Parts: sequence; structure tokens; C-alpha cells
Amino acid sequence: MPDTPALPDPIPLARRLIQAPSVTPADAGALDVLEEALSALGFSCTRYPFGEVDNLYARLGDAAPVFCFAGHTDVVPPGAETAWTHPPFGAEIDQDLLWGRGAADMKGAIASMVAAVEAYLARHGQPRGSIAFLITGDEEGPAVNGTKKLLEAIHARGERLDHCLVGEPTNPASVGDTIKVGRRGSLNGVITVTGRQGHVAYPERADNPIPPLLALLGRLTARTLDDGAPHFQPSNLEVTSIDVGNAPHNVIPEQAAAKFNIRFNIAHQGGDLKQWIEDEAAAVRAGFNGRIALDLTVTGEAFLTDQPAFTDLLRTAVIEVTGKAPALTTGGGTSDARFIKDYCPVAEFGLVGATMHQIDERVPVGDIRQLAAIYTRILERYFVAFA
Amino acid sequence: MPDTPALPDPIPLARRLIQAPSVTPADAGALDVLEEALSALGFSCTRYPFGEVDNLYARLGDAAPVFCFAGHTDVVPPGAETAWTHPPFGAEIDQDLLWGRGAADMKGAIASMVAAVEAYLARHGQPRGSIAFLITGDEEGPAVNGTKKLLEAIHARGERLDHCLVGEPTNPASVGDTIKVGRRGSLNGVITVTGRQGHVAYPERADNPIPPLLALLGRLTARTLDDGAPHFQPSNLEVTSIDVGNAPHNVIPEQAAAKFNIRFNIAHQGGDLKQWIEDEAAAVRAGFNGRIALDLTVTGEAFLTDQPAFTDLLRTAVIEVTGKAPALTTGGGTSDARFIKDYCPVAEFGLVGATMHQIDERVPVGDIRQLAAIYTRILERYFVAFA
Ligand SMILES: [Zn+2]
Ligand SMILES: [Zn+2]
Repeated sequence: MPDTPALPDPIPLARRLIQAPSVTPADAGALDVLEEALSALGFSCTRYPFGEVDNLYARLGDAAPVFCFAGHTDVVPPGAETAWTHPPFGAEIDQDLLWGRGAADMKGAIASMVAAVEAYLARHGQPRGSIAFLITGDEEGPAVNGTKKLLEAIHARGERLDHCLVGEPTNPASVGDTIKVGRRGSLNGVITVTGRQGHVAYPERADNPIPPLLALLGRLTARTLDDGAPHFQPSNLEVTSIDVGNAPHNVIPEQAAAKFNIRFNIAHQGGDLKQWIEDEAAAVRAGFNGRIALDLTVTGEAFLTDQPAFTDLLRTAVIEVTGKAPALTTGGGTSDARFIKDYCPVAEFGLVGATMHQIDERVPVGDIRQLAAIYTRILERYFVAFA
Repeated sequence: MPDTPALPDPIPLARRLIQAPSVTPADAGALDVLEEALSALGFSCTRYPFGEVDNLYARLGDAAPVFCFAGHTDVVPPGAETAWTHPPFGAEIDQDLLWGRGAADMKGAIASMVAAVEAYLARHGQPRGSIAFLITGDEEGPAVNGTKKLLEAIHARGERLDHCLVGEPTNPASVGDTIKVGRRGSLNGVITVTGRQGHVAYPERADNPIPPLLALLGRLTARTLDDGAPHFQPSNLEVTSIDVGNAPHNVIPEQAAAKFNIRFNIAHQGGDLKQWIEDEAAAVRAGFNGRIALDLTVTGEAFLTDQPAFTDLLRTAVIEVTGKAPALTTGGGTSDARFIKDYCPVAEFGLVGATMHQIDERVPVGDIRQLAAIYTRILERYFVAFA
């Protein structure tokens, strides 16, 4: 394509975003930087503050289809700043790497999105459809005042998104490894067993809460939840803590508690898992004089974006730029895609996540430019395929 | 027995002993009170101080056999003194009850022992044999500077005890219920499992220490140690604490620990149980990348005083005074009998333990007098049977 204009450089915007120390829930000017860049490209921008969090929805164009870039400008705390090789909010470039909190997760990707829109407009003019940005300041925090409420608010105002791409750092090692086309669901459980305290020499006068707790954990961990599902690892239950806090060796404690987490694939729904856990607890409760209390919270359902017309388009764009065929996966932690999937097909593709959330978070400047090229190809293919 | 002299009253001595606030390791004059009473009866008394604890050995007579009363003058702390109906060191008598810390455990019984010796001497003169008192000030504490060292010290000086009776409050409800003719052994265990921390979304990159800990606890609790033994309840393992202390729901912890106690009968020796636990840990360790550390301590071996000539004598004396046939048992917690059993046959019989170690510890004055009568009959029968 000899007459294709050179790609605008995403690095200056990435640096300005990193220099805003937007540790959740602080915005620290990060959204102002982004809004200024989007406004310059013709987007109409609206802020949606919820609680102490600010959020931004921006749209260019009036027509359908609406292709939406989604992400977050908040970052996790830098930790011990003196442990950083380069200051966490300095956005220094050294050895062709951009250093700083958020470089990988995900201010670099947001700069790539903006550069991609600028490139698209320079090459093709206004799209036959719309481009939107759905950006929250509460992804790394409790995620209560972020994407979920933002989606509800714009939906209430009549906004309809047709497809969404989240810029989370999906690649384990190099740009092009992995597109996320779904996520596992997550269920947090707390089991609290209350018995009757006593002396170990007289167990018949006490009700030790530990054996029923162990019995229940044994039932929960004994089940093979499934053997995996298309694009999904097997579902997995991890017991993450057990706490009694009973110091004396000769005392039978009154209470024992355990915490666990289930990451589950589309073979399950959160409600079914909750019912199963309730049933297992009831079975253990039957032989026990004390109380077994459950606190079960589904923080996200499993989902799979099973839309080949959309995911193949993303995949082809990645191949065109990187020469690599990305895997379509659903592994790893949760993301705001769990909220977006209720409104439109959603996938995730961004930078390399190897250093995210760590001291010395950094990403090659070449990766950010390459990601901008991929996002540009996605926009180009999208408005050919869906407009 | 119309010409039997009236029994000396043990209550004044019991009161004076309770009025000495001898909370372990303090003596607070308690042994002085006892030594004064024993010296008046002709005993030669020797103190054996170890560390911050004082101990007393007293003997009347030079010949074998040596019948020894054993016990302790230390008491557990009174707790919230304002919660007591009567002051814990006041030794007040109200409603025919003697109130105070140590009334049941076991200053009342020590006063009964002294009154019994006085009664015996008044009725029969010097025994054909000896009467000894083995009294420690460290039974309720760590029991390191008490009976164990005292026995070693008098043994080194050539003292030989033939039979020993410990005055612990053995009766659950009324004097005459229960003679202890042995005790279960006790093993304390701590299991510490160290794995590799990680994120619940990536269990393959972590080694959760909780599953191997649960597996090991499952193996340990699954075994029926035995179905009991003559005079013994079944051996029992109680898990007393499990502690991880991992707050976040999405983190796989690095370390998990559990504590347990085994009360075991004479079907087991502490060393065999330790070996079994080591073997079970080795089996679990085989499938685990982390470390499993064990800390196993046998604080006492199980023993049974299988000497019908001695225990039948005790039993007959109880029946003569109370009209009740006491059960010969081995239940409950440990006592210093675990040390004495290495030197001579030992049994335990004392007051009613219902209020021991509690606020408002108290015992009927009639019980203390009845116990003195029983101890007198034991001395009388002993020097007929064994002299
Ligand atoms: Zn992120
Ligand atoms: Zn005692």
C-alpha cells in the first residue's frame, strides 16, 4: 500500500497518560489528556462521574454500526517507588522501552487506539458508522463506579454499541499471541462453621467446627467441575484461606472459616454452582450440631463471544500486521468485558502483560506502534465488513 | 467403731492454704502453712526449689513400705476477681460451702490428707512403714520445675516410694464417683505446609499449600485409632486450629498451618504415633512441590495402674465411707501422675472438680471432711495390706 499515509505516533500520548498518576480512584488529569486528544479528532465527549470515580464516553459519528474501543485510565499503585529503575510516573524511554505504571495496563493501548482512529480518518475520512470510546477510571479498584454504571448510563440515553474491543494486555510474550474472546466466571465463597468450644480431653462435651469444615471442603474439592469447554480451560476451585485462630493446643475452638474461589467456564452458571455448594453444605450440616453459614458471591458469569464474523476479522488484522496467528483464548483474570458482554459482542486485545502490576512495568515502544497498526487494520476491516 | 477418736477437722487448714494466693509460680506462703502442719505431726520436711518454683517433700517414718500423698499447692489465676461471689483468696464459708481458688483443685484435698494422717496416728500410732507428701508448686504452670524434678531429686537421695495417691479432683459430681487409675497420653502436632503464592486465575503457576494440608488432615482424621482399651476411652485426634491468614479472594497463599492434639490410650505409644504421622506426611509430600514440616511433641505417654491389690484397696475404702462403688477410669486431662507412674503405682482420688479453674470455685465443707475420712481408711487398709 504505497500511498498509505504514515501512522501517527502513539508514544507522546502514551507518555502524557502515564505522567498522570491516576491510581484508582484518582483520575489525576488522565481523562483530560484523553478527552483533549479525542476532541481534536472530532469526538463528542461526555463525562460520567459516579462516586469518587470519573468516566468518559466519546463518540465520533451518528450512524450505526458503532465500533467501540473500551478500557481504563486508572492504574494499580506503584508499590515501593524507590524500587523502580525509572520513576513510575516519569514515562521515560530507555532502551526502546517505555517505563511506567500503566505502560502495559493499559495506557499504551489507549494511545494506540487514538492513533489508530487518527490514521483511519487520514486514510479514509469519516467511517460509514461510528467509533466510540468507553473509558473508566475504576477497573483496577472495586469496579463498582466504572464500566458497569457507564454502560447503564449511555444505554439509558439511547446509545447502542455493536461491537467492542477492550485494550487489556492479552499477550503473554509478544504482540499477536492471544485474543481473548471470553472470560471465565468467578465465584467467591466464605464458609463459616460455628460449633461449641471445649477441652480436647472431653471432645464429647464440645462440637469441633473443624471436621465439618474439612468435610465440606473435601466435598467441594473432590468434584471435577468439567474437563474444559471449547476455548476454555477446565473450571477450577481454589481454597484460598482457612482460619481458626485458636492458640492453645488443648482447646477445641468454637468457630472455623474458609474462603475459596471458583473460576468457571461456560459449562456452568454462577447460580447452579451456588446451589451445588448449598446442597453440599446441607449434607454436611445434617450430621452436625452447630451452624454452617455460606456467603457466596458471583462476581462475573462465564461468557464466550461466539461471533466468527467479528473474531475472525480481529484475527486477520493481527495476522496482517504481525504475521502471527493469534490464539483465541479465555484464560486469566476477569476484566470489564464481563460487563460489556451483556450489551454487545466483545473481545480483548492489547499489549504484552508480562510486567503489568509489577515494579518496573514497561513495554517496547515498537509494541505500542505495532498495536496502533493492528487497531487501524481492525477499523478498516470493520467498516468494510459491518457498515 | 465406737472407740474411734473423732476425725480432726481439715477445714481450718484448707482455709489457711486457700488464703495464700499461690498462683503459679508464686508460693505465697502456702508451703509454709503445709510444712508447719506436717512438722507438727512429726514429718521431716525438705524444700526443693527449682527455678522460681518451690516444692516440698515430707516423710514420716523410716521403714518401707512408703505410702505417698502427692499434689500441688499452686492454683490457676482467679480471673476477674470482681466476678467472684466471695473473694477468691478469702476462703469464706457460706451455705456450707468453702469458697476460693484451689478449694477443689486441690488445697481442700491436701488438708484432707493432713487430717487423715493425724487421725491415723491418733488411732494407730506410728505406721509400720512410712507416709510421705510429694507437693509441688508447678502443676498448673509448665510443670517443668515441679513433680518431675522433685521425683528425680528424691530418687537421687535414695528415696523409694511404694504407692502414690494424687489428690486431684477426680469426681464429676459427688465424692466417690471416680478413681483415676491411669491417664491417656497426649501428643501435640503442628503441620506447616509451604507452597508457592500466585493468582487464582493461574493455579498452574502456583502451588497452593491448602490441598496437601487438607489431604494430610484427611488421612490423620480418617483413621480410627482404636475402639478403646480396658479402662480407656477410644483414642481421639482433634484438629484444634487451621491458619492461613490470606485476606484477598484472588490470591493463592504461600503457607498454611494446622494444629492438632491426640489423646491416646495404652494401645499406642507416642513414638509410634509420631512415626505414623511422619509416614502420612511423606505420602502427601510425594505429590507436592512444596514443603511439609511437622512439629510433634508427646507431652505424656498413656499409662494404666494395673495393680488390683492397690486399686481394690482404694475402692474398698471409698465404698466404706460413701457407700458408693467408684468407677476406675482414665479420662480427662493430664496430671502429674504421668511423671509419678515411672516410679511407682499411682492412682488419683480427690474432691468434686465441677468448679475447678472457674470463677466461684467452691466445694462443700462436708466433702472435704468426707475425703479426710476416706484417706484415713486408705491409710488404715494400706498398712494392714502392705506392711
Ligand atoms: Zn487492565
Ligand atoms: Zn490440680
